[in-house]
Amino acid sequence: MTLLNKSWLDEVSWDTNGLVPVIAQEYDTGRILMFAWMNREALQLTYDNKQAVYWSRSRNKLWRKGEESGHVQHVHEIRLDCDEDVVLIKVEQVGGIACHTGRHNCFFKKLENGNWLVDQPVIKDPKDIY
Amino acid sequence: MTLLNKSWLDEVSWDTNGLVPVIAQEYDTGRILMFAWMNREALQLTYDNKQAVYWSRSRNKLWRKGEESGHVQHVHEIRLDCDEDVVLIKVEQVGGIACHTGRHNCFFKKLENGNWLVDQPVIKDPKDIY
Repeated sequence: MTLLNKSWLDEVSWDTNGLVPVIAQEYDTGRILMFAWMNREALQLTYDNKQAVYWSRSRNKLWRKGEESGHVQHVHEIRLDCDEDVVLIKVEQVGGIACHTGRHNCFFKKLENGNWLVDQPVIKDPKDIY
Repeated sequence: MTLLNKSWLDEVSWDTNGLVPVIAQEYDTGRILMFAWMNREALQLTYDNKQAVYWSRSRNKLWRKGEESGHVQHVHEIRLDCDEDVVLIKVEQVGGIACHTGRHNCFFKKLENGNWLVDQPVIKDPKDIY
């Protein structure tokens, strides 16, 4: 007899680097906070602890979001897309700041007449966050 | 004298394949519709015509969203993130169907007790779309 213990993690189509792209959306406002990556361990930890853990491609290690800043993300929902290769998490952003620039979210540049214009304020100086 | 005609397209950090990940969000509801990729030409066309054009990595060519299905996306806003390597577009989804499965959006699998559960209906049978 073969016991099949297929995990929900096996249903994710990990890329050749073992990563999956992740969109973090504010659960109550619907605003997109940030985009990052997770490996298998990060997604497992995110699910287990209901707190977002990403994989930092630049530092090549787990990135426990908010570890330094306190701006952790409480996870309300985890979703997978039709091709099983993109994850969407709906989170509560503690501190109301998701971006390392001290802004609410990372998408603060809007294309206007062929220029990227910043249209969101810095809520807290990054020097006072990290 | 050197004339510098730096384009807004040059400010995007294209990956080694010349692509940038793109999140498509419904402009009025805030719901995430889909995730895809664009190359330089796709982003230029999307901006010029205010209609989403992606780069299909599987077919290795431009993908004029809705060309076959009629489910085009009218672009209201184009945004770039802090690292300039992710694009967010806010769109009006014609037909109310963004996913090739005939659903409103691609993120119809929700993680519940260790299982991915489908919680969104098929609005139109894909056989009747394509």
